[in-house]
Amino acid sequence: MSATSTQVRLASYPVGEPQDSDFEFVTIELPEVGDGQVLLRTVYLSLDPYMRGRMSTAKSYAAPLRIGDVVLGGTVCEVVESRSPKRAAGDLVLAFTGWQTHAVVDARQTQRIDPSAPISTALGVLGMPGFTAYAGLLEIGKPKAGETVVVAAAAGPVGSAVGQIAKIKGARAVGIAGGPEKCRVLTEELGFDVAVDHRSPTFVTDLAAATPDGIDVYFENVGGPVFDAVVRRLNRFARIPVCGLVADYNATEQPTGIDQRPGFMRRVLTLSLTVRGFIQDEFVPTHHHDFRREMGEWVRDGSVRYREDVVEGLEQAPAAFRGLLRGQNLGKLLVQVGELPAPAIDSAGARARP
Amino acid sequence: MSATSTQVRLASYPVGEPQDSDFEFVTIELPEVGDGQVLLRTVYLSLDPYMRGRMSTAKSYAAPLRIGDVVLGGTVCEVVESRSPKRAAGDLVLAFTGWQTHAVVDARQTQRIDPSAPISTALGVLGMPGFTAYAGLLEIGKPKAGETVVVAAAAGPVGSAVGQIAKIKGARAVGIAGGPEKCRVLTEELGFDVAVDHRSPTFVTDLAAATPDGIDVYFENVGGPVFDAVVRRLNRFARIPVCGLVADYNATEQPTGIDQRPGFMRRVLTLSLTVRGFIQDEFVPTHHHDFRREMGEWVRDGSVRYREDVVEGLEQAPAAFRGLLRGQNLGKLLVQVGELPAPAIDSAGARARP
Repeated sequence: MSATSTQVRLASYPVGEPQDSDFEFVTIELPEVGDGQVLLRTVYLSLDPYMRGRMSTAKSYAAPLRIGDVVLGGTVCEVVESRSPKRAAGDLVLAFTGWQTHAVVDARQTQRIDPSAPISTALGVLGMPGFTAYAGLLEIGKPKAGETVVVAAAAGPVGSAVGQIAKIKGARAVGIAGGPEKCRVLTEELGFDVAVDHRSPTFVTDLAAATPDGIDVYFENVGGPVFDAVVRRLNRFARIPVCGLVADYNATEQPTGIDQRPGFMRRVLTLSLTVRGFIQDEFVPTHHHDFRREMGEWVRDGSVRYREDVVEGLEQAPAAFRGLLRGQNLGKLLVQVGELPAPAIDSAGARARP
Repeated sequence: MSATSTQVRLASYPVGEPQDSDFEFVTIELPEVGDGQVLLRTVYLSLDPYMRGRMSTAKSYAAPLRIGDVVLGGTVCEVVESRSPKRAAGDLVLAFTGWQTHAVVDARQTQRIDPSAPISTALGVLGMPGFTAYAGLLEIGKPKAGETVVVAAAAGPVGSAVGQIAKIKGARAVGIAGGPEKCRVLTEELGFDVAVDHRSPTFVTDLAAATPDGIDVYFENVGGPVFDAVVRRLNRFARIPVCGLVADYNATEQPTGIDQRPGFMRRVLTLSLTVRGFIQDEFVPTHHHDFRREMGEWVRDGSVRYREDVVEGLEQAPAAFRGLLRGQNLGKLLVQVGELPAPAIDSAGARARP
């Protein structure tokens, strides 16, 4: 059987905010499925801020996309055809096939999905964003009971998990988000102690009021002006896991004005701060096993909740990605690329094929 | 017996570089020695960059000096009179009596000095600067064999210990210092693999040539332009213990131009850097015992060497301190305030009084 795939390829490196013209839609004929390979049909595509970094040739931890490459990304796929004993048609798997409707890959490049949770969570709370929150907060942030943990982009998939894990550990969770609706979700649905709207003109004083005992852990995934306000509230020995700087990803010029690095380094010194950048891969060997067990329990027992923001159709991916960088999503942003598989799950937890 | 003390007091908070007029010399009559107290005669006064921070009301880890306070500092003193069973006249002790010739303090505020090493080392390689190097490098820097460790102010008491301990741990030691004489001392006397002169117009390319495999540990005690050059050479997972920023201590205005903090944070993220400020006190409970044992051995067997820069007379302290902030000293800067005690040491290692 041969199939076609509609793909979104990088047409040019974006300057500032990605434009539609930076992406090119093409439909290709896929190769035959070879020995050990599977043909996959994309159900969900994950959109994440790190993708912006790969659309740039600036030095980073990973090689940039080349012009003409399919844009990368994690996906939940259904196996359409298999020539591997590891997978059967109808299996649902986690893959990294990117912005396209179908793909032929080695079966070893797929992972079976836990059938006891909704399949979309493999890209969110039980996937890379959830693991980023878990490993960064627990291994670098090390929150203690009674401490104050602050996280920005708190309504996103990483931030919302950070705040809820902080609560499980007995800390006070303060979420920063853009707009009253996100702030409402943080306190009313996700259990944050308090939410602060960074778009409010009173943000700086609101943050101070929300952190009367200062800040012990700041989970940094945003950068920009939010960071300035946070830095002033840090306590001695505060920890700052740095996993993203989405506010700066579209920057095209170095900012000018006051050079804030010397002042920041002075605070690092006088407050004995720990600032630690990380990419979640680093912690997979040491922490992923515990993550699967603990986070799975927390999601099942409701102590960690999650929100999803699903847009339909691969053609929506460029606009949705732009919105992500502007902070327009509430919860994990997913593109539903293809039909959902039949939801039947038998009593043993294994999927029954129709 | 009553005694007088000549004291150097803070007359005004310095703006920029400390001026003679920021200090006031007074001679006072000391109180009688009370129960449990000792009268001390200062032999050596230590001058250290951290003192500049205490001459400022900017928020820091320690309260600032008040106008009229005796300027603080570690000292090596001889006990002149004792009303404590813990100390006897003639004992040599480490104290924190500051910029003055004599003082009356509780005997509990003094520590007996190891009689097997020259007494001045209690303020240098076997004292606070040596411990700063030891704890910061081993606990935060964690150098591994074959890695590259870079330290600035490398001819100073902290930097020279950092480089030599790095060598003991099998790392490559690169020292940054100002001027050819300091650089010569680093490689010819202190065992650094290579020295780079930050005053040279070719400093940036010299540093690159000196670190062909990048930088794994940068022990930061300087700040300023040296840091810019170092940041470009950092490897993934590099560690930056931050114990001082002497190049910025006299700054009176926030620097302007390009705001380098966002770019720095981006490197923290993409290179998974660890940046950790510290004050050595934090590590005393956990590391000081090992420090005394290991550093004592290393100094005795010659694997850690040290240089001292001694100026004579308390009246020289303000000018010497200015020179310290400009980087003029080579090795540990000490003021010899009073006569040295007779050097006789008997065969058991106990001091024989003349």
